[in-house]
Amino acid sequence: MSRGLLLVISGPAGSGKGTVIKYLMEKERDIAYSVSATTRSPRPGEVDGVNYHFISVDEFKSRIEHGGILEYTEYCGNFYGTPKKEAEEVLDAGKNLILEIEVEGAANVKRICPDAVLIMLLPPSHAEQERRLRGRGTEPEDKILARLAQAREEIKQLGIYDYIVYNQDGAAEECAQDISSIIRAERLSRRRNPDAESKFLGN
Amino acid sequence: MSRGLLLVISGPAGSGKGTVIKYLMEKERDIAYSVSATTRSPRPGEVDGVNYHFISVDEFKSRIEHGGILEYTEYCGNFYGTPKKEAEEVLDAGKNLILEIEVEGAANVKRICPDAVLIMLLPPSHAEQERRLRGRGTEPEDKILARLAQAREEIKQLGIYDYIVYNQDGAAEECAQDISSIIRAERLSRRRNPDAESKFLGN
Repeated sequence: MSRGLLLVISGPAGSGKGTVIKYLMEKERDIAYSVSATTRSPRPGEVDGVNYHFISVDEFKSRIEHGGILEYTEYCGNFYGTPKKEAEEVLDAGKNLILEIEVEGAANVKRICPDAVLIMLLPPSHAEQERRLRGRGTEPEDKILARLAQAREEIKQLGIYDYIVYNQDGAAEECAQDISSIIRAERLSRRRNPDAESKFLGN
Repeated sequence: MSRGLLLVISGPAGSGKGTVIKYLMEKERDIAYSVSATTRSPRPGEVDGVNYHFISVDEFKSRIEHGGILEYTEYCGNFYGTPKKEAEEVLDAGKNLILEIEVEGAANVKRICPDAVLIMLLPPSHAEQERRLRGRGTEPEDKILARLAQAREEIKQLGIYDYIVYNQDGAAEECAQDISSIIRAERLSRRRNPDAESKFLGN
């Protein structure tokens, strides 16, 4: 059985990332989740190793330092992240693992796991992105401007991504199909099947 | 419109290449043919530039020398080949072009067009390949042995291929779907969309 893929999916506000990933999850059976690590305290009923790996701040920071955390985020004073070991177990079992993260986190994953496949989901254009964000009518102007500025910054890092998927209006299912094709193609790539010659010859 | 892909599909005897390509052609609409060049004389009714580009042996050899022929073969004393210029026109029009050729020709195409996507179609194993060739019951023993020996030689060149597609028994349609996924993924790859940033920003 071939190893699973570590897929990183990024997308600015207005890219429709949530909907695309929802469709992708419905379509793909070989996708698994890894249990995240966190420094926050367990809530009633939460089980260590099932809901989260509950670890101390010192432990979390030490793991970051030693490349043991693929990506992480800080929220309300607590760390949340993906342990490399957990991810490797999923991949070794032949399952694909999806991380939905920002550009900075994506760069970190690529550094720790060069085999990761980085996919950037984009609105068709920055102008269309602005139209979508304003169209929601739910956010204050300063927040919209901040999101647009962030997208302009993030797009400069497009060079670290392996694939670019454009989400046209109402095309979330098409985008999920694009990502499915990427998964299928990547798993057929020669560099992911280095033992193909001896496998064919039965050595 | 993005540029089309130059797809090279190779596969040893018993790989089911013909059937897979038939399914692929039915499935994919963006595939075009290029007009081949040949040194043989036109037959009655054949039109230069439509059926073939009819050129002299000197012209053909000169084009080979100058990288103007992507791949060629000699048959009954005549040359047949794919002119690079014809191929480029098809690709520039956004269409994909498929060349069904042997390993040696594939290496030549990769040398002249590094952007070409090389796909090797394989039986699940060499043993299964032998079973298929004998199962046909149409070829003499020496021919079967020669084909098997050729496959063992060709598999050594697997390193030049970008993708490996395995044709399990009765899985020709699956293989065509694999190749469709490869086409779709490759067209989304960042290196084939180098102007994505300025396109997004509308510059």
